[in-house]
Amino acid sequence: MRDLRPLFDPRSVAVLGASNDPSKWGQWIAAGALRGAHRRDVWLVNRKGGEILGRQALRSLDELPEAPELVVVALAAAAFEDAIDASLAAGARAIVAITAGLGEVGAEGKARELAVVERVRAAGAVMLGPNCLGVYDASAELDLGSNEFSPGSMGIISQSGNLALELSLLAAQYGVGVSRFASLGNQADIEAAELVEAFAADEATRVIGVYCEDFRDGRAFARAGAAALAAGKQVVLLAAGGSEAGARAAASHTGALASDSAAVDAACRAAGIQRVTTPKELVDVALACLAPHRPRGRRLAVVGDGGGTGVVSADLATAAGLELPHLSEELSAKLTAIAPTIVATNPVDLAGAGEQDFWNFERVTEAVLASGEVDAVVLTGYFGGYSQMNEDFRERETEVARAIAAAAGRAGRPLLVQAMFWDSGPARALREGGVPVYRDIEAVIATLAALVEQELRPAAGVAEVGAAAPPVCGGGYFEARELLAAGGVPFTPARRATTAAGAREAAAAVGYPVALKALGLLHKSDAGGVALGLGDEHALEDALSDMAARLAPEGYSVEAMADTSAGVELIAGCRRDPRFGPLVLVGLGGVYAELMNDVAVALAPAGVDELEQLLLSLRGAGVLTGARGRAPLDVRAAAAAAAALSRVAAAHPEIAEIEVNPLLVTPAGSVGLDARIVLA
Amino acid sequence: MRDLRPLFDPRSVAVLGASNDPSKWGQWIAAGALRGAHRRDVWLVNRKGGEILGRQALRSLDELPEAPELVVVALAAAAFEDAIDASLAAGARAIVAITAGLGEVGAEGKARELAVVERVRAAGAVMLGPNCLGVYDASAELDLGSNEFSPGSMGIISQSGNLALELSLLAAQYGVGVSRFASLGNQADIEAAELVEAFAADEATRVIGVYCEDFRDGRAFARAGAAALAAGKQVVLLAAGGSEAGARAAASHTGALASDSAAVDAACRAAGIQRVTTPKELVDVALACLAPHRPRGRRLAVVGDGGGTGVVSADLATAAGLELPHLSEELSAKLTAIAPTIVATNPVDLAGAGEQDFWNFERVTEAVLASGEVDAVVLTGYFGGYSQMNEDFRERETEVARAIAAAAGRAGRPLLVQAMFWDSGPARALREGGVPVYRDIEAVIATLAALVEQELRPAAGVAEVGAAAPPVCGGGYFEARELLAAGGVPFTPARRATTAAGAREAAAAVGYPVALKALGLLHKSDAGGVALGLGDEHALEDALSDMAARLAPEGYSVEAMADTSAGVELIAGCRRDPRFGPLVLVGLGGVYAELMNDVAVALAPAGVDELEQLLLSLRGAGVLTGARGRAPLDVRAAAAAAAALSRVAAAHPEIAEIEVNPLLVTPAGSVGLDARIVLA
Repeated sequence: MRDLRPLFDPRSVAVLGASNDPSKWGQWIAAGALRGAHRRDVWLVNRKGGEILGRQALRSLDELPEAPELVVVALAAAAFEDAIDASLAAGARAIVAITAGLGEVGAEGKARELAVVERVRAAGAVMLGPNCLGVYDASAELDLGSNEFSPGSMGIISQSGNLALELSLLAAQYGVGVSRFASLGNQADIEAAELVEAFAADEATRVIGVYCEDFRDGRAFARAGAAALAAGKQVVLLAAGGSEAGARAAASHTGALASDSAAVDAACRAAGIQRVTTPKELVDVALACLAPHRPRGRRLAVVGDGGGTGVVSADLATAAGLELPHLSEELSAKLTAIAPTIVATNPVDLAGAGEQDFWNFERVTEAVLASGEVDAVVLTGYFGGYSQMNEDFRERETEVARAIAAAAGRAGRPLLVQAMFWDSGPARALREGGVPVYRDIEAVIATLAALVEQELRPAAGVAEVGAAAPPVCGGGYFEARELLAAGGVPFTPARRATTAAGAREAAAAVGYPVALKALGLLHKSDAGGVALGLGDEHALEDALSDMAARLAPEGYSVEAMADTSAGVELIAGCRRDPRFGPLVLVGLGGVYAELMNDVAVALAPAGVDELEQLLLSLRGAGVLTGARGRAPLDVRAAAAAAAALSRVAAAHPEIAEIEVNPLLVTPAGSVGLDARIVLA
Repeated sequence: MRDLRPLFDPRSVAVLGASNDPSKWGQWIAAGALRGAHRRDVWLVNRKGGEILGRQALRSLDELPEAPELVVVALAAAAFEDAIDASLAAGARAIVAITAGLGEVGAEGKARELAVVERVRAAGAVMLGPNCLGVYDASAELDLGSNEFSPGSMGIISQSGNLALELSLLAAQYGVGVSRFASLGNQADIEAAELVEAFAADEATRVIGVYCEDFRDGRAFARAGAAALAAGKQVVLLAAGGSEAGARAAASHTGALASDSAAVDAACRAAGIQRVTTPKELVDVALACLAPHRPRGRRLAVVGDGGGTGVVSADLATAAGLELPHLSEELSAKLTAIAPTIVATNPVDLAGAGEQDFWNFERVTEAVLASGEVDAVVLTGYFGGYSQMNEDFRERETEVARAIAAAAGRAGRPLLVQAMFWDSGPARALREGGVPVYRDIEAVIATLAALVEQELRPAAGVAEVGAAAPPVCGGGYFEARELLAAGGVPFTPARRATTAAGAREAAAAVGYPVALKALGLLHKSDAGGVALGLGDEHALEDALSDMAARLAPEGYSVEAMADTSAGVELIAGCRRDPRFGPLVLVGLGGVYAELMNDVAVALAPAGVDELEQLLLSLRGAGVLTGARGRAPLDVRAAAAAAAALSRVAAAHPEIAEIEVNPLLVTPAGSVGLDARIVLA
């Protein structure tokens, strides 16, 4: 881990390309740099000299009295290399390269970046960008960018300046400021993973929001996310480019190689990174992660004053997989003792009791939080609205809000609030007390559901790919079968044969009925190179002479038939993502399930537990676990087969794709029925 | 259609239970009533008399100088009947019954309501409530409720006061006010449908938002929604209680009978009602419906300044089923002619060209809108933000916003805007020009997708149930089969037999192989009363003697076997919803599809076109239309069978449930293989 302190808390800053023109980056950066001039040396450099923002500009870095720790390069692409070299010669430890028109434009720019990065690294320096929008650190009072942030506890790493701005605006409405911001740019030197590491180590940063188009070393990113989580700092990721149009846009934006969305999901699940799809969702989730407690299970109680909001919350929560358990008689009695009008079911409806006495909001919320009967409480609706009526109400309701926050702090479980008066005094008092207050109920429910999912499916950890095994030479069917069998994937007994006589011998050895498969064909099944359920030597002879006549195959695989009647066909496969490395996919076979794309993906190699979880997370998992009176299948055996497949794939970088399809799972085990390799 | 003018625009108002106590409804209503005193007589009535809000209160309605057109009853339940009778005696044409503690509490209250309603109707009057929160009409300056609304164009009908308030607050942030509000309460007399009719006829109301827990006459509600749409006024419905916990809460709230969510969906689809799940979604959709144009297809162009927001929008839009087509070379050239930095793909990225000249936002948006290459345009991101910088920018950007709105008005297709500075001067100028401006991009995309879905799947219309046929007498298997066959559902040939000899004869008549089913058993299949594929008389004999020995059935059905090998098994069934009447369900059979609950529901009777659409809307419809090289199936024949089933069900109110399962569909037709009736 390199030291990024010179980037976020430099002892001095020089701005190359400082300008007086208010429409230029060179001015915004210079003005920002000057805001930190009370705690560090700031030098503005412009080859024309003169006065910039009331300061004497230097003509070049040569004129500096001492080495600049950080240099911001806000110059055109043509001047890029000279500027970097001059910076390194002057002794810079960190460079923020604003310069655009390099790697994002094409191969030539990419090559120029690479050459520069070599020199930066050789000098022991670090570089953010190029094509980046700057850097901000609230604690260090460092503000080298175009966005204005207010100080706070959310770190933002973003490949888009406008998105970072939007995140900061959305967070600000909820009273959350920004601890640090780094613009990713083209990630020529510093990549997203290294920034996540640095943000996790930053004291002021309590949650890390990332907008990323290109992950570079995806495993390193996932590992950094897992480490940040272990340090108590949740990474919330808005990963873009999952659609064709999105990927097209990302490519034009930062030259990004957008990752397959399933690969990103797999990495997030492995690392405990929360993935979102919009800036609003990112802030919604981050807000809950700043609260002191996280939900430990699905049980939710909703408290409202007035029935409608409770009903809507209950419907949403149920749809999101949360549960609203009935309250115990004891708790119900406790609630109606607070005020007899209270509808003491779940959702709880104060039904006017809050209006009669604001403290009833606190009494009810506290009682439900303290009961231990639920894992989280949502207070929803009008609370906060009385403060709009008069000053006396405002004071009383704000006092109640403080007490509610204190109760939530003591309770050891989260309270989330949705308030139509989300910006009222009481709402702000709740926030100051550590209770997240949202504007819309769907944000509350979606956030809770996401956190519960993470809690109940603990991250498997980011697998190491490990050393490569000696490469395989052939990509044929029988080679695939043997490679996988050697790696631990069970298959039905099979023998290879090149002649009809050999095939008869093989069949006698594996036992009738047999399957006969022609070898050496690209798509043996489509070509009619597969004959199943050959019950005796006569049937085998017929199939052999038919295939020989039609296909003249280079040989045959003669295989024992598996009994598929009590089983379900799965698919298991691995492929390589250019950013995230080998991935293992499991899914349900059959036309319908394949139409539904009922599959799940994990980083390879994956363990048996993880793959068992993955299989059980399929939408149609019920067909594996005994739906409609069927015998439960040996899911664990199928997971073990997929785990073995994933180990083989991870050890063979020369294999682009490898799959076992179908992978039969029965009540008594799992066995591969066919296999396929595609070499890279 | 009754005249609700006395409710929304009364010539005079009397408030029974007017009060000086600021914590009481009696005061809020009285104060609201007085705000309209400049245009109508307002009388405050309290049996204690005295002065209320600076006015002399009357002791009873007897003291009124003339008949009150509208009476608000804000009295306790004990005084309810007397108050209604006095109001009717005084000549009231409309009553707003705030009184709670009646029908929502239990059967006795329900009976009291019914008795009162009879007298109200006999007097030719109308009543809103009881257990309602009042009524508001901006044009009539009538304000009889606890919520404060600002005048505008959205009508709100709600079973919850707090939800209505939340809707109005959410709408207000987008500059949309409320034309009318009616609280549904217990709907003892006036039901939701009648209010929708009245709102549709109200000139000031341009879109109708409904929060409903209990639909009463669900078909009438759907018909009212369809009529409102025909009058250009979209109904947007937040229907609650789809979950068990939600239904529980709704029942405690208004004694509501929450409808099955599928029934509500069916009604909405038939009527062209937009269904949403949260208050925010309701306002998001309503906002777009107030704009002059609606999207006619899925093609979307996204225009942004900065790559990130474009990427996120593209991903979201693709996931929502919208399409971002490539732009034509002509249009691309037009865009780069505006400014060379513009990335003229879709999403379009101004890439700083907006910053250089705000008018470039207008030029680009106009060119894309006018191109005809897309059905809608989304402008997203920073636009509006320059106005925060200085006064000059604010004026220029606001002027550009006005020009953009004018261009959108001319274009004949919708422009939706997402702006992180959603409340800026330019954003408000866009709104004033008829362009909806949203805070979050997911709202824009979800709203567009919902409107496109409605456009591309035109509402089938709300079916009339029609007259009842003579009731069926038996609920047995063969009766079900005969009833359905007579109604037009094709079945395999079958004969009924009571003896083994009769069965042999029957088999000879329908032709081997046959299926043998024992009659008179509740669950013939589970009991072993079904034998399939009996190839000859010998096999039939065996099956007959086996069933006779085990089950002693009252008879047999002997049926020709259908060839299921090239077909797919569907399910088709009908049931009765207490609010929406007969519903027809179609879905995919098989364990996996049934686990996925891959079904769709329509109001019965439904037509062949509608059911064909419904079948093709199933998630797994690909198995019907030729996925993976299979022959396309005769979906229309299956739809015709389901349509016939739905006609039978609609004509037989005595049938609680009726189904054909499986309904086989093959490339050459569709045929029922089994049937079942449950009498009510």
